[in-house]
Amino acid sequence: MIELSEIKSPADIKNLSLDELTALSKELRKTLLTKLANHGGHVGPNLGFLEATVALHYVFDAPKDKIVFDVSHQTYVHKMLTGRMQAFTDPAHYDDVTGFTCPRESEYDLFEIGHTSTGVSLATGLAKARDLMGGTENVIAVVGDGSLSGGEAFEGLDYGATLGSNFIVVVNDNDMSIAENHGGLYADLRLLRNTNGEGEPNYFRSLGYAYRFVKYGNDLRSLIKAFEDVKDSKVPVVVHICTQKGMGYGPAEADREHFHATGPFDLSTGSPLHISENLSWTELFYQTMKPMMAENPGVVAITAGTPDAIGFNKERRKEAGRQFIDVGIAEQEAVALASGMAKRGARPVFGVLSSFIQRAYDQMSQDVAINNTPVVLNINYTGIDSLTDMTHLGWFDIALISNIPNWVFLAPTCKEEYEAMLKWAVKQTEHPVAIRQPNTEVWVTGKEFTQDYSQLDKSSVCQQGRDVAVIAAGSMFRNAFEAVESLKEKGIEVTLINPVFLSGVDSELLDSLKKNHRYVITLEDGVLDGGYGEKVARFYGDSDMKVICRGIRKEFLDEYDPTALLKECRMTPELIASDIESLLK
Amino acid sequence: MIELSEIKSPADIKNLSLDELTALSKELRKTLLTKLANHGGHVGPNLGFLEATVALHYVFDAPKDKIVFDVSHQTYVHKMLTGRMQAFTDPAHYDDVTGFTCPRESEYDLFEIGHTSTGVSLATGLAKARDLMGGTENVIAVVGDGSLSGGEAFEGLDYGATLGSNFIVVVNDNDMSIAENHGGLYADLRLLRNTNGEGEPNYFRSLGYAYRFVKYGNDLRSLIKAFEDVKDSKVPVVVHICTQKGMGYGPAEADREHFHATGPFDLSTGSPLHISENLSWTELFYQTMKPMMAENPGVVAITAGTPDAIGFNKERRKEAGRQFIDVGIAEQEAVALASGMAKRGARPVFGVLSSFIQRAYDQMSQDVAINNTPVVLNINYTGIDSLTDMTHLGWFDIALISNIPNWVFLAPTCKEEYEAMLKWAVKQTEHPVAIRQPNTEVWVTGKEFTQDYSQLDKSSVCQQGRDVAVIAAGSMFRNAFEAVESLKEKGIEVTLINPVFLSGVDSELLDSLKKNHRYVITLEDGVLDGGYGEKVARFYGDSDMKVICRGIRKEFLDEYDPTALLKECRMTPELIASDIESLLK
Repeated sequence: MIELSEIKSPADIKNLSLDELTALSKELRKTLLTKLANHGGHVGPNLGFLEATVALHYVFDAPKDKIVFDVSHQTYVHKMLTGRMQAFTDPAHYDDVTGFTCPRESEYDLFEIGHTSTGVSLATGLAKARDLMGGTENVIAVVGDGSLSGGEAFEGLDYGATLGSNFIVVVNDNDMSIAENHGGLYADLRLLRNTNGEGEPNYFRSLGYAYRFVKYGNDLRSLIKAFEDVKDSKVPVVVHICTQKGMGYGPAEADREHFHATGPFDLSTGSPLHISENLSWTELFYQTMKPMMAENPGVVAITAGTPDAIGFNKERRKEAGRQFIDVGIAEQEAVALASGMAKRGARPVFGVLSSFIQRAYDQMSQDVAINNTPVVLNINYTGIDSLTDMTHLGWFDIALISNIPNWVFLAPTCKEEYEAMLKWAVKQTEHPVAIRQPNTEVWVTGKEFTQDYSQLDKSSVCQQGRDVAVIAAGSMFRNAFEAVESLKEKGIEVTLINPVFLSGVDSELLDSLKKNHRYVITLEDGVLDGGYGEKVARFYGDSDMKVICRGIRKEFLDEYDPTALLKECRMTPELIASDIESLLK
Repeated sequence: MIELSEIKSPADIKNLSLDELTALSKELRKTLLTKLANHGGHVGPNLGFLEATVALHYVFDAPKDKIVFDVSHQTYVHKMLTGRMQAFTDPAHYDDVTGFTCPRESEYDLFEIGHTSTGVSLATGLAKARDLMGGTENVIAVVGDGSLSGGEAFEGLDYGATLGSNFIVVVNDNDMSIAENHGGLYADLRLLRNTNGEGEPNYFRSLGYAYRFVKYGNDLRSLIKAFEDVKDSKVPVVVHICTQKGMGYGPAEADREHFHATGPFDLSTGSPLHISENLSWTELFYQTMKPMMAENPGVVAITAGTPDAIGFNKERRKEAGRQFIDVGIAEQEAVALASGMAKRGARPVFGVLSSFIQRAYDQMSQDVAINNTPVVLNINYTGIDSLTDMTHLGWFDIALISNIPNWVFLAPTCKEEYEAMLKWAVKQTEHPVAIRQPNTEVWVTGKEFTQDYSQLDKSSVCQQGRDVAVIAAGSMFRNAFEAVESLKEKGIEVTLINPVFLSGVDSELLDSLKKNHRYVITLEDGVLDGGYGEKVARFYGDSDMKVICRGIRKEFLDEYDPTALLKECRMTPELIASDIESLLK
């Protein structure tokens, strides 16, 4: 029996017997589970794809053969087999690896991938270039059934079928997205599962692929046989393998949605080790939506495959019935669907992560903005204090949405303001409205918000001062508020403004500041380039007002430290206050 | 026989016999061709879908029944039948209607649609809201075979199949996109055409649709029968009709690609009335690519369904062979494919219209920028002097691309600079590079450009002056140049800067301007919000420099007058000069 620590590269498993590979898989699973329980991570996908990963590396010759993992959150075992075992066996090294494929870590990782439905398309490029430049390697794209609902996956499959050369698509079908699958395609996958792959119609064949079905996708022997059969295939082929999400760990097999990804948990019971009692923005979305949905059958919550991330667990989805829609991982459809629904008199609210709404820019522009349909977007997981993976940053939505005409983009600062904004957005029918939920701790102020948001671009002056005005958007407002309060104690009275709107500036207010202010500081929890601050800077461009824009530099960071980044951006209460004091000196 | 002028609404054709409808169709075709020959427009799609439009309005009851036309450039006959006949019969009123569906014109038009692959998705929203709010109307989405390659069309079909209620998708299959179709799916459509719709696999059935095949999609009787059969269907159904692009007009049937859309032509021969002899930016792209492709088999030109718009006509495509790739109307795939190819050592150049690159924002960010793959984008049809349809504006690419980290975004001002930039972009392998082709007349300066663009963000000072510096990007540079020349004649010497890069400012240069300049004027042929000028305004925010940003207001205009808009933006040579003079007074 090979020791895990002996595995430095896939070469080390090439000479193992089936029994030894089976024993190895058992050991990998045990080790992986120990790390997952202690560290958290994507549990279900990695347990489910464990045997397939072993079989892929046994049969194919990476890194010469190119394996592209869609989403790539199922690559923990791949990392274990490709020189990064210590990051799974040694708690001191758990954080040596990211949660996704990462070319900086290993030549076995081809791309940074975190969004779904991109892997097949990227792999078509590898195959096409191979054919053009003269190469003979296998190109293998691994894609989950859930990812197939994304338009890019379709485009990649559609084009890939025409390559006329080696192109192997492994469809990892665990009959699940993060939650259940949605889309007509999934009835076809069910048909194929139920007919041992022999039924018609066959989606993959309809696109032009040769097709191979593997009923037991957690059985090494079946997998190895199938992969050996398609290795060096001269035509595009789909290998459709049926796996068990959470395989080999009872709690994860039982509650596949919860165990898609979790924090640390008790290995013996599966119970989470930490449960937050705090009110979350996700919960607040649900709680604000619920009474509106009860009151008006046209009010609908839409998700694109992440129901839990907008507060709709299984029970609540059931309760919401037809007023809850999951379109699958298909943000383009979610936005266009919402536009069609709004046109027909419904009040759709699409709840979506900042990092994922960028998958529907054209739909926000063409399907919504040009038609001015009163769609509502609830954007969450925004800003610095959010997901820290390079592929899931919540920084780009301001530059994305605020520069499309007709969108009203609101930035709530606290619980009460958020509630007022969402209620207004759903009630009105004049504008497409996006609301940017902070991802910082929910600030409960007890304040009443009565602003009429149909008066567009009206900011709110929260403290009247002089010399310096701070315009602090959304999640950064609380920091500015604390800074201003601390200065007050020192007898310094500056002006504090909540911009309320990100989609335009309050010209009248900004003009009025010229009277007794010399400096305006803008604070935003997003990238500076194309952001809110630049609109203010342009407004004051030909005046004597000095404008200082604070926000995030235009760059991709990976697994960064939010506290350090906030400091670097000089947006902590302390640094805001000290910067103001420096200006006044 | 009904006169065309008597048709005020579809009600006027409901009582016609089949013979009368046939005669009407003939008359519609004749009238339409006369307008097309005189006025130009989308010839092939409208001739091909003529009978189907008559049949749709004969069978269904719009506007109660909702018909959504994908792309909507095939809706001329629809407009003729829905109260807008005069815009086709009376040359004085030819411009009364836009080239796309337009809710401002008629209640029969549901959405402004111009991009492909959106119609099915929008229609799912109409159907879903109908079911929720309690309605009984038919919802019909009309989509061409070419549009099916777009990811949004797949997402819409996939979700639409799950509606469980009336949802009718008319697939208008003319075996063509703008040029030939590309993608595995099209082999399946061919199979279905060749088997009278009876073959397997069947793409539409694989997604869960009931399916109806109409072999003669220009035959009124077949169409009426099929539409009557599916009217009030209780389940999602696809009606696959085979039509002839350019039907009934010999030249258009013979050269379907050219007659997809044309300017005015000689009705008797089909020959274009106006042929521009001027060098176009499109031609320049081809001419610059050609030698690079000959030299390096890894240099590849990619299009997403618009080969002619990047200068690759049929003959040139044939000549380019494997080094020319058309992925179908699938911009997401085009960008991701390019990333994969670049990773594997090829040098892909994706040529794409400004308005269409926004369909691949997430791919530009995730598949390319995060991975820093040296993809090249050639963005054309940019700026004011370009396509003037609301759905095809070339204004938003600067805000889109320049705010994504890692992209190098170049703005050539003339032929020679463009050539230098494209050559550099293809040669280097350090950065993803986008090049923004102007759409104004190609400016041939005879200048030599030797700038090393790997020194990022370095602007070029073209005239050293004082007091005022004009930073004029891309297509606006020539206007600024002329302004500065005219001022020189008056003895006024201002500084003229070509920013070269749109993705970042030249801090060193901007700093140096502080010495003897009071004003900086930025000029860009794009939306002000999120644009280049705002980066300059932010840079100078805390200094004494005054910054004036010129560009386009954040709004959607439709069929605007480019000359008037340029004036309104104060970016003509005359207005630039006079504004500078005013500042110096």
